[in-house]
Amino acid sequence: MSGAEKDPLMLADVQNRKDNRQIALQRVGIKNIRYPITVLDRERGSQQTVANVNMYVYLPEHFKGTHMSRFVEILNQYRCEINIRTFQDILNEMKRRLASEEAHLEVDFPYFIRKSAPVTGTVGLMEYGCGLYGTMTDRLDMMLLATVPVTTVCPCSKEISEYGAHNQRGQVRVWVRFRKFVWLEDVIECVEKAASSEVYSVLKRPDEKFVTEAAYDRPMFVEDIVRAVCVRLKKMEEITWFAVEAENFESIHNHSAYAYTTVDMTGGNAGFIGGPPNLP
Amino acid sequence: MSGAEKDPLMLADVQNRKDNRQIALQRVGIKNIRYPITVLDRERGSQQTVANVNMYVYLPEHFKGTHMSRFVEILNQYRCEINIRTFQDILNEMKRRLASEEAHLEVDFPYFIRKSAPVTGTVGLMEYGCGLYGTMTDRLDMMLLATVPVTTVCPCSKEISEYGAHNQRGQVRVWVRFRKFVWLEDVIECVEKAASSEVYSVLKRPDEKFVTEAAYDRPMFVEDIVRAVCVRLKKMEEITWFAVEAENFESIHNHSAYAYTTVDMTGGNAGFIGGPPNLP
Amino acid sequence: MSGAEKDPLMLADVQNRKDNRQIALQRVGIKNIRYPITVLDRERGSQQTVANVNMYVYLPEHFKGTHMSRFVEILNQYRCEINIRTFQDILNEMKRRLASEEAHLEVDFPYFIRKSAPVTGTVGLMEYGCGLYGTMTDRLDMMLLATVPVTTVCPCSKEISEYGAHNQRGQVRVWVRFRKFVWLEDVIECVEKAASSEVYSVLKRPDEKFVTEAAYDRPMFVEDIVRAVCVRLKKMEEITWFAVEAENFESIHNHSAYAYTTVDMTGGNAGFIGGPPNLP
Amino acid sequence: MSGAEKDPLMLADVQNRKDNRQIALQRVGIKNIRYPITVLDRERGSQQTVANVNMYVYLPEHFKGTHMSRFVEILNQYRCEINIRTFQDILNEMKRRLASEEAHLEVDFPYFIRKSAPVTGTVGLMEYGCGLYGTMTDRLDMMLLATVPVTTVCPCSKEISEYGAHNQRGQVRVWVRFRKFVWLEDVIECVEKAASSEVYSVLKRPDEKFVTEAAYDRPMFVEDIVRAVCVRLKKMEEITWFAVEAENFESIHNHSAYAYTTVDMTGGNAGFIGGPPNLP
Repeated sequence: MSGAEKDPLMLADVQNRKDNRQIALQRVGIKNIRYPITVLDRERGSQQTVANVNMYVYLPEHFKGTHMSRFVEILNQYRCEINIRTFQDILNEMKRRLASEEAHLEVDFPYFIRKSAPVTGTVGLMEYGCGLYGTMTDRLDMMLLATVPVTTVCPCSKEISEYGAHNQRGQVRVWVRFRKFVWLEDVIECVEKAASSEVYSVLKRPDEKFVTEAAYDRPMFVEDIVRAVCVRLKKMEEITWFAVEAENFESIHNHSAYAYTTVDMTGGNAGFIGGPPNLP
Repeated sequence: MSGAEKDPLMLADVQNRKDNRQIALQRVGIKNIRYPITVLDRERGSQQTVANVNMYVYLPEHFKGTHMSRFVEILNQYRCEINIRTFQDILNEMKRRLASEEAHLEVDFPYFIRKSAPVTGTVGLMEYGCGLYGTMTDRLDMMLLATVPVTTVCPCSKEISEYGAHNQRGQVRVWVRFRKFVWLEDVIECVEKAASSEVYSVLKRPDEKFVTEAAYDRPMFVEDIVRAVCVRLKKMEEITWFAVEAENFESIHNHSAYAYTTVDMTGGNAGFIGGPPNLP
Repeated sequence: MSGAEKDPLMLADVQNRKDNRQIALQRVGIKNIRYPITVLDRERGSQQTVANVNMYVYLPEHFKGTHMSRFVEILNQYRCEINIRTFQDILNEMKRRLASEEAHLEVDFPYFIRKSAPVTGTVGLMEYGCGLYGTMTDRLDMMLLATVPVTTVCPCSKEISEYGAHNQRGQVRVWVRFRKFVWLEDVIECVEKAASSEVYSVLKRPDEKFVTEAAYDRPMFVEDIVRAVCVRLKKMEEITWFAVEAENFESIHNHSAYAYTTVDMTGGNAGFIGGPPNLP
Repeated sequence: MSGAEKDPLMLADVQNRKDNRQIALQRVGIKNIRYPITVLDRERGSQQTVANVNMYVYLPEHFKGTHMSRFVEILNQYRCEINIRTFQDILNEMKRRLASEEAHLEVDFPYFIRKSAPVTGTVGLMEYGCGLYGTMTDRLDMMLLATVPVTTVCPCSKEISEYGAHNQRGQVRVWVRFRKFVWLEDVIECVEKAASSEVYSVLKRPDEKFVTEAAYDRPMFVEDIVRAVCVRLKKMEEITWFAVEAENFESIHNHSAYAYTTVDMTGGNAGFIGGPPNLP
């Protein structure tokens, strides 16, 4: 599928034709295009990574179709930098070039942070799955996602067993709406401080001893982790709304333990716009 | 994690303890447990398949945790048959045994339908990714999902080219809320009739000729497919609400073309309950 | 793509034409077709499940293409039962109908076994990812796969820490070649007995205490598990060759610990045929 | 798991202990660690991307385990640049620090190439899934992977139908062993020139017309594509061995058509070392 604002060959613009079925479409566009992007990095200024991108607009009932090629052209034009400011520009450009009153942009990407082992200080890079999601109507609704791996020690197993306690890798996802800029690093830190222990890419033996004992000293259910993250996020003034999900890849089962909740810091007046948020 | 209504060994019930953080959790439970199930089959009465199951309840703020093992016990007890009636029973049993005012059940499974090639009648089985989702508070909110592969021929490519037209496999997903029983087969048929052509597991040469020409005669954008499915679903009286998504795995691109919309047949009075529907 | 032995409409058989590039193809056929199948079950006689199937033949250099529709017809004809005997029949039928000297069949499926919790005896179903792979030339080369989730407690973490020990879910995959029939259940048991602890779908508190302490008493690296499985499989006389892979989803890292080895019980005279085995 | 060459706290080195089971392990190490890397780029000198990395060594029978943390330390040390020269250095460092006679390194990453639409010249970036795999014993065995999306028009459908022809996105994977440096760009070009048509990230209407007609003029089975790629790769003198796989995501089926073959340009004297290549 393709389209052009001016077509030198005078090819028919099929998408632009009338449609009489009286059905507007909430989202039309392109999905799962992979693109290299640059994002802000608190420590190093910026970071190059690879994103998975979805771009949609609202299609009024009288148009047959949208012009898919324009989405990629806009992406290519702005790809140098994806941040909260350019997000707004891209969404406005989508509205303008696709002649739509509503635009959606979803960008998921791996984000890396340098992290030192807790005792030896050995350095490695940790990957966090992150995302930026935005909807623009007459105003902007933005959301940020951070996916954070953690260690969790089971409080029940610890208490009822004479020794040991089952523990496992868990994954916490936090979606955040904000009134002013929030660093991914701050959201990630909230989660890492709330778990039985942080996870590291490299640990030497003294670090492993430290992490094992620290986690055993601080057993947590998925329910505890979600609540502990909530308590911390509630203290961040920039945040207006958040959702927290914790999933434990249970070491004694072949399925996950799961907990999830949302908190609206505006007393229900956050006034979200756009379609269904891309939530669990 | 585990729990027991009566514990013969008098082990501590850690989950049952008080929590003082004043944070209720919207969903706690188990995720991604795989289980063999039997579902209703319009042609053959019933069909055995393998499901991916999520089970959650609401956790009030004063409890530390839920009892994860009870979810699996309930699943094991009811697994013989998953249908709209048993769904309600399972959800009520979850509320009862977990002492919660709200329960959620999500069941995804492959579903197979016997299908004959359009000319030679050669028989094969087609797989459709299906799902049943339910939330029980004081009443039930249920949703059904059917994922249907289709062929789509691009109208723009056909019109502007002297010969040929790019086409591809597409995937349509339909979520449906209903006031009385709906067969998966009926929803699937709605989608298959709305595409450029249906997809088959086996086609002999005369069938392939038929399918190629029929699809070329009926070019459709993702936008067209979503609208055509909407038109058909609006005629099904059992349905109170639906969402339709079409995704084309474009043959000329490495990304997808996408369209999505929802239609509320109750004039906005459907009154959905429960958390965010598991939508795109 | 399609084909027919006798074409009532006299449509051209393009696949059957000559190719002059002098390049034979080791494998041509269909991939990732999902089909319901019935497999042998030691406890219950048989079990219905859903398979992912690949079917390939050798294509001599002088033929332009193979007839893809025949693969699905054969699958449909034999689907009632997939076992070691029917495997041979399907492969022979593939050779005959596709006029090829070599045929390959790969069938992956979830397999469920009833399992009782170790103390309370509470019953649940456990899923194991299994596979059957076969190549037929003038003789048959068959392989069986069992994927088994396990618990692993780290020996290093246990020894250097004053209390606790990191542990996690691991996954063991075993590929087996055999001289006579082997039950999946026997291979799976070999693995479960070789881990720090088995994994269960349902555990009550007394079971959880048991599993936690038993695992802590038996710490194992991925290297230990692979070796322990090797020791057990070497005692099974039916087996002529095997490969064992252990992967730990480390609870203190965001990556896996990994070990793998193969053992040929025939002293290198196993004489495997066919293409590259579908190994890690 | 972790280890240290010199341990300031004198913690026990459990991995270093003796094992008496007389079973050497072909591969032990870390799997699925994600890391940002820089690779060579023919057009721009270098390109930053994100890799999935596996690192393994051979473990002799008398050692209990390997030291997993050293793999990450080596990765962190060399991550600046992944190319054929540094690959050799990393593998040698792995052998040295893990005291092993054999080392394996597998690096998969998305790679982006700037590509202009065929008529309007509109520029976009295309993603190709690439990989570098190496085994070092007393010498080096290296392999390169390029995954290339293509358009394929079915020759049978075109010939037997009065108009139209089913076509779809296909995916071609090429693994290459070489005697001297090969650009990923050259291998990718080989595949793109061998398909019914190349795939683009952005096409305006005149481009879409061109691509539609060009593809219709050049129908190809998966078998044809594999052979056409073989013919082209055979002319590249740097290459000593290759494997080609083509998979069509059939637009008229819900499964794939598949073809695969390998060609040894050394007359069987390539003398590959290492474990099973990571092939289909």
